[in-house]
Amino acid sequence: MAKINQNFNKLPGSYLFTKIAKNVAQYQAKNPDDVLIKMGIGDVTRPLAPAVIESMHKAVDEMGTFEGFHGYGPEQGYDFLRSLIVENDYKSRGVNLDIDEVFVSDGAKSDCGNIVDLFDVDNVVAVCDPVYPVYVDTNAMSGRAGDFGADGKWTKLYYMPCLEENGFLPQIPDKKVDMIYLCFPNNPTGMTANKTELKKWVDYARANGSVILFDSAYEAFISDMDVPHSIYEIEGAKEVAIEFRSFSKTAGFTGTRCAYTVVPKELVVEGTSLNAMWLRRQCSKFNGVPYVVQKAAAAVYSEKGKEEVKETIAYYKKNAEVIYNGLKEAGFTVYGGVNSPYVWMKTPDNKGSWEFFDFLLDKANVVTTPGEGFGPSGEGFIRLTAFNTYENTVEAVNRIKKIM
Amino acid sequence: MAKINQNFNKLPGSYLFTKIAKNVAQYQAKNPDDVLIKMGIGDVTRPLAPAVIESMHKAVDEMGTFEGFHGYGPEQGYDFLRSLIVENDYKSRGVNLDIDEVFVSDGAKSDCGNIVDLFDVDNVVAVCDPVYPVYVDTNAMSGRAGDFGADGKWTKLYYMPCLEENGFLPQIPDKKVDMIYLCFPNNPTGMTANKTELKKWVDYARANGSVILFDSAYEAFISDMDVPHSIYEIEGAKEVAIEFRSFSKTAGFTGTRCAYTVVPKELVVEGTSLNAMWLRRQCSKFNGVPYVVQKAAAAVYSEKGKEEVKETIAYYKKNAEVIYNGLKEAGFTVYGGVNSPYVWMKTPDNKGSWEFFDFLLDKANVVTTPGEGFGPSGEGFIRLTAFNTYENTVEAVNRIKKIM
Repeated sequence: MAKINQNFNKLPGSYLFTKIAKNVAQYQAKNPDDVLIKMGIGDVTRPLAPAVIESMHKAVDEMGTFEGFHGYGPEQGYDFLRSLIVENDYKSRGVNLDIDEVFVSDGAKSDCGNIVDLFDVDNVVAVCDPVYPVYVDTNAMSGRAGDFGADGKWTKLYYMPCLEENGFLPQIPDKKVDMIYLCFPNNPTGMTANKTELKKWVDYARANGSVILFDSAYEAFISDMDVPHSIYEIEGAKEVAIEFRSFSKTAGFTGTRCAYTVVPKELVVEGTSLNAMWLRRQCSKFNGVPYVVQKAAAAVYSEKGKEEVKETIAYYKKNAEVIYNGLKEAGFTVYGGVNSPYVWMKTPDNKGSWEFFDFLLDKANVVTTPGEGFGPSGEGFIRLTAFNTYENTVEAVNRIKKIM
Repeated sequence: MAKINQNFNKLPGSYLFTKIAKNVAQYQAKNPDDVLIKMGIGDVTRPLAPAVIESMHKAVDEMGTFEGFHGYGPEQGYDFLRSLIVENDYKSRGVNLDIDEVFVSDGAKSDCGNIVDLFDVDNVVAVCDPVYPVYVDTNAMSGRAGDFGADGKWTKLYYMPCLEENGFLPQIPDKKVDMIYLCFPNNPTGMTANKTELKKWVDYARANGSVILFDSAYEAFISDMDVPHSIYEIEGAKEVAIEFRSFSKTAGFTGTRCAYTVVPKELVVEGTSLNAMWLRRQCSKFNGVPYVVQKAAAAVYSEKGKEEVKETIAYYKKNAEVIYNGLKEAGFTVYGGVNSPYVWMKTPDNKGSWEFFDFLLDKANVVTTPGEGFGPSGEGFIRLTAFNTYENTVEAVNRIKKIM
């Protein structure tokens, strides 16, 4: 008789954002006249850049001709895109990568989730708390998390609380951990780590043979000069870190689907190259990103594309500022929002985060994300995103101010 | 210290088609003037249908506007596409499916590979021999295959030899197996299974609590009326089978990337719904197919799209006929090629399949796929694909005839 992977039955409820979408849909069904402003899921709202649109149209035309038609591409992405990534995202910041260290994919979520294929079930996994749920859920599915306890924690995970008292920065573990998930600018807190902070992690990983899984999906929002965009800006990081990047937040590709993962050739674990392993994994379980989408991503690096994308990021950053400043003026305690599209807001009067989520939904018709959904230490906070129109953002902040 | 998934180190060499591409590139570098005709990898060559191109252009335009922009879609696909699939691919053949039994994805390769996430490592996996390498490699990666022996077989897999003497049809196992991969029309042999044959498998799976993983990526090539297109045409199959489908071969989407997997709600293993598990898996490790690609796939079901796609399939089927008849007339023993884009050709004089691959590459400048790459029982055969121009197909057959 077939046997299922019983780890799935240990997962509590559904994926966080699926649950929120359901709650919101139920609320809207009951209150059809309420005009909701959605600042929950981190989904962009502005159209693709004209340079991207133009490039996609050209690629679609090619696909309709014998000469321009593209069938299976390389699983790891076309060189035209990989070389643009190496040149623009890394060389420009003093990091030298070979093209075959870059793997183009359909999303950072897919890559963050699938990367666990490369690791033994017996690794100790360290995650920030609060944290992007994908790191936790995908390790739980593959048996690396143990059991889910009544305290909202998995028995085998090593949690690194990110709290007000430590500036929301994870602290170096007091025991040996093997796989370390880091995300900067952070989702959900919106906080960043400077070079000194990141160097501590690279040093720890080198000393302990750990692998850092570095998610820099939000690097495009960094404006402070001293905040690193890539973990590879830290010396020695190539021997210990995998980096995840995405066009989702950089260029509004959440519905267009393109991302990439860097697995340096220096990253060798137990004598085996993780680069070779990931290539083998992707060649066996993935068939590349659509040609038209890779052409769309390439346009992000054109002069026109760069300008247009920068404007969109600036637009969202202004929204983040509106949220941060508006709520601060209103007397709330807020974090993040500077090098990030996310504002991490303390709930007033020690309200529970789901309770405050419901309160904001009901009284202000503003959808947020309850901090507890990101882990036990997220309790007492909610996350607000800047991915909306300026007008809606101003309106949402005013509504929240009014009901408090 | 981090520990890798050691199963990766058990994999022999690289993914089959990666290896072939490398061999061919080396040959071409040494013989730059040789004009190769590629009949190796099953990659389509004809442009996307005009209806598909038109639909994609429209969708691209939408993505450039505020009103038409699409961010994150449902991980399991947009309802507009899922309902077209239910209506056209199933209802038309007497199979009733709910929309939420259909999961749209970026490829059948991804789904066939990722589906193993749902199963315990201890299942006994049955595969045809020869077989599409993805089933084997992805089970090997997740520890279900054991070790790779000198005989070219994995110690823990149950092999079902598909040979001339059994009409290339897998035989019901003489022991209990838990997961059964079936592919009809078959890759690589091009053979099909009728309802009586498929019913044996459904009955076996029902009696033994096995799960059938049914790959019908090539169903569009079926012309014989009595050949089922879906395993669900067999009564009771919904309780035991998952089905993989793709737009790759149906509508030339190999470089456009869209497929779908059906996980019926009746499919319950150890008290757990595989439909719910797959939804949880996809929501945590996947973020949906690009909106423009789903719009492209939807156009395949328009009246115009259906006509155009049918013409392309007919074109390839004619090529298959040219290969099959041409090689048969020349005295070769050939199989498949009728309800399939693949012709399975016996090597002359008991030549080894890699030897004959090299011989054809060198003497006829025709690229094929050596049968041994699909498993030990593929030895003594090569696979030829119909995915080329009519002119090249005729030329390739003539070249092969000439050198024999």
